[in-house]
Amino acid sequence: MINVAVVGFGNLGKSVVNSVNANEDLNLFGVFSRRKIENENVKHFLLDEINNFKDDIDVLILCGSSDKDIEVQGPELIKNFNTVDCFDTHSHVPEYYKNMDDLAKENNKTAIISTGWDPGFFSVMRTLNQAFLPDSNTYTIWGKGISQGHGAAVRSVEGVLDAVQYTIPKEEFLEKVRNGENPEYSPEIAHDREVFAVLKEGANKEEVEKNIINMPAYFKGYNTTVHFITLEELNKNHKGMPHGGKVITTGITAGNSNAKIEFSLDLDSNPDFTAQIATAYARACFRLNKEKNFGAKTVLDIAPKYLSKLNNEELLHHNI
Amino acid sequence: MINVAVVGFGNLGKSVVNSVNANEDLNLFGVFSRRKIENENVKHFLLDEINNFKDDIDVLILCGSSDKDIEVQGPELIKNFNTVDCFDTHSHVPEYYKNMDDLAKENNKTAIISTGWDPGFFSVMRTLNQAFLPDSNTYTIWGKGISQGHGAAVRSVEGVLDAVQYTIPKEEFLEKVRNGENPEYSPEIAHDREVFAVLKEGANKEEVEKNIINMPAYFKGYNTTVHFITLEELNKNHKGMPHGGKVITTGITAGNSNAKIEFSLDLDSNPDFTAQIATAYARACFRLNKEKNFGAKTVLDIAPKYLSKLNNEELLHHNI
Repeated sequence: MINVAVVGFGNLGKSVVNSVNANEDLNLFGVFSRRKIENENVKHFLLDEINNFKDDIDVLILCGSSDKDIEVQGPELIKNFNTVDCFDTHSHVPEYYKNMDDLAKENNKTAIISTGWDPGFFSVMRTLNQAFLPDSNTYTIWGKGISQGHGAAVRSVEGVLDAVQYTIPKEEFLEKVRNGENPEYSPEIAHDREVFAVLKEGANKEEVEKNIINMPAYFKGYNTTVHFITLEELNKNHKGMPHGGKVITTGITAGNSNAKIEFSLDLDSNPDFTAQIATAYARACFRLNKEKNFGAKTVLDIAPKYLSKLNNEELLHHNI
Repeated sequence: MINVAVVGFGNLGKSVVNSVNANEDLNLFGVFSRRKIENENVKHFLLDEINNFKDDIDVLILCGSSDKDIEVQGPELIKNFNTVDCFDTHSHVPEYYKNMDDLAKENNKTAIISTGWDPGFFSVMRTLNQAFLPDSNTYTIWGKGISQGHGAAVRSVEGVLDAVQYTIPKEEFLEKVRNGENPEYSPEIAHDREVFAVLKEGANKEEVEKNIINMPAYFKGYNTTVHFITLEELNKNHKGMPHGGKVITTGITAGNSNAKIEFSLDLDSNPDFTAQIATAYARACFRLNKEKNFGAKTVLDIAPKYLSKLNNEELLHHNI
């Protein structure tokens, strides 16, 4: 049994608790958080006490936010624990990796950073596709899914009581990519935006719609559709966290023949699936550390077998 | 530069020659074959002489047929060379692996077996999908593509001058899989068959069609369509080697939300793309051997970074 503890109890932390519990080779040691958790189904501890348990925990899964939590917690916790995280600030990845790598090696620990689906599963797909088809173009396209940042932007508009925002890939853009036309990419070219908003009493509908559609950085330049609905309808139909996306590579082989590789994810719950992936990498993290493979790793450093519950014999018989 | 030699000069061997030449970190040492090759563009040698070059070659890519060539050649060649192959007799993989593993370890060599796309890329996808979504069903579906075995079967029917056969996934079956209905699988349920045949002079069309459609093991039980065309049309439109396939996984996360993962390949030339993959694994084979990681490996033992031309710093910046 691999003893796994979860740091943070937001959406992702809650999903990771479920995911760890569903794997029979993993044992949920408990959840650590800055403040006390009111939840009787989970053994919980204050984060301040975590070093008392360093001999009882094999791997920590860090479930805080990348900028506020993990960038600070990771380098602190790796001194005493193996860690897996979903650090997703793409531009900070090289620096965070270096920081974690040095500390992990000093302390004989193993860190797997930036798991989840993007970065994570999508990073693996981009790398395999490019390695197998170097003369090609690779597109990463997101959606259909909820963008938390865009929802918050809409909610900040005067007259809006509550709102969510879906990012939707443009079908005609996808077709050009699939046809190997190598279209120019920008987020506006590739995606539409769809808003479901609830008006405050007395708000001017046309005014609110105009202010949403023209919001710079978030909506200006996009094809945006705004639907005004009731609070009841919003709560009933739009409070899930669906997401998904595609990695599409088209190109030519060295024999001058066309090849197309398409990978897509369609998820009812973004945090649930992110959690499943982080959990599989916790298994890999434990195994690598047992092999004295210390330091920071990304998903590109991990062979598929380390993620699987199956042993080598089973993989040879059933998966090859 | 990594010195790569190719063993065998059939369809796959020819594609591998192109693929190795297209990679600037690889150098094509030459092609080895049982008989002399008439081709001025390729440096060629007789297979009998191969051991004279054991210090000049870093990796051999074995391009013969699985049953007739590789099962015999692999265990012989691994004594003096690192090898990559596309061994695709699924039921013999565990035994072949064991055989290669023992010999590779004895001789400080590295073998990567069963590369290509199935087994190979598809094996990686099956393993990742199942690791990330254990409570799920995974379907592997082939086509649209040419099945060499079925083409040969049609050509054996009396009255047929020449023919090809396409295996086509049934759209309604794919829809059930994508909807998470977990339909029962059999090759007949999942695929249709389409034949393009040229009749010999004087042959009875209805008779020939009946004999094709009712051929046991190949067509009986399938929804088969037979088109009779001219030899000219067959040679013009049906002499390529297109293929492809899908790995589709649907299931539920531990949080009880639905998730769907779909991966698909669409290839104008089956041997060309198979060659691209074998070539990337030749790079991995060389690197693993340099790290003294001896023995037989499958694609499930290889981390994505070993396949890429990019170094760690580039991968951190561009692919994560």
